[in-house]
Amino acid sequence: MNPRISIITLGVRDLERSLRFYRDGLGFPTTRKPEQGIVFFQTHGVCLALYPYAELAHDVSDEFAVERSKFTGITLAHNVRTRQEVNSVLELAKAAGARIEKPAQDTSWGGYSGYFSDPDGYLWEVAWGAFEIREDGSLVIP
Amino acid sequence: MNPRISIITLGVRDLERSLRFYRDGLGFPTTRKPEQGIVFFQTHGVCLALYPYAELAHDVSDEFAVERSKFTGITLAHNVRTRQEVNSVLELAKAAGARIEKPAQDTSWGGYSGYFSDPDGYLWEVAWGAFEIREDGSLVIP
Repeated sequence: MNPRISIITLGVRDLERSLRFYRDGLGFPTTRKPEQGIVFFQTHGVCLALYPYAELAHDVSDEFAVERSKFTGITLAHNVRTRQEVNSVLELAKAAGARIEKPAQDTSWGGYSGYFSDPDGYLWEVAWGAFEIREDGSLVIP
Repeated sequence: MNPRISIITLGVRDLERSLRFYRDGLGFPTTRKPEQGIVFFQTHGVCLALYPYAELAHDVSDEFAVERSKFTGITLAHNVRTRQEVNSVLELAKAAGARIEKPAQDTSWGGYSGYFSDPDGYLWEVAWGAFEIREDGSLVIP
């Protein structure tokens, strides 16, 4: 098995609302329309997809058709090259309608980071430090 | 904001068990040891990380220190180049201790896919079809 994640799909409550958040608010590029039923973004390295929550659960099996807990156990990180960028991305997310779950602050590992949640409560960490970022946006793992 | 996901972190119940599953079972490369407290894999494009569940929740805020539902609302997809690879990756995952949640089958969108869950129940779809895969493993979004 090639060590590769191709797509991260978020099960969302309102496809139009989430599309607006990611496309118009955060600036993630896509040519998709909500009426196509699934949205793919041209994100670097891994594709971010939005799909209705109930349909995503059903796509796995009806055993998964349950309410979601506040914490999913999964976080997505957006690493940046400067401390200042952490602040500006969090401000952008807030202006787009995100909830700031943890304001940017110094971390125990010598970095600087904060968390926001998207309209469905999925968590994004915006982080600086510890990792070198390549030209293509991928990380050099320490 | 650059459209980029740098890291996907899975909050796990047993870091050693999950490390064995991903490293020894699926063959994901890492030089990390469980005693370092967090594991990073050298996955393509996006970095997969494992971190203890309770610590990950606490890293966001104590509001997130809650039990997780069976369905997290998030799936990770591993896309492959042939139908046969879907079968072989699911077999590999099963041999590594994964649970097959949906056996490989033809999909409504003209592809072929199945789902497995990892030791914590995080869902991976193994899928063929619809997407062209570049040399570096990333997808051409249709």
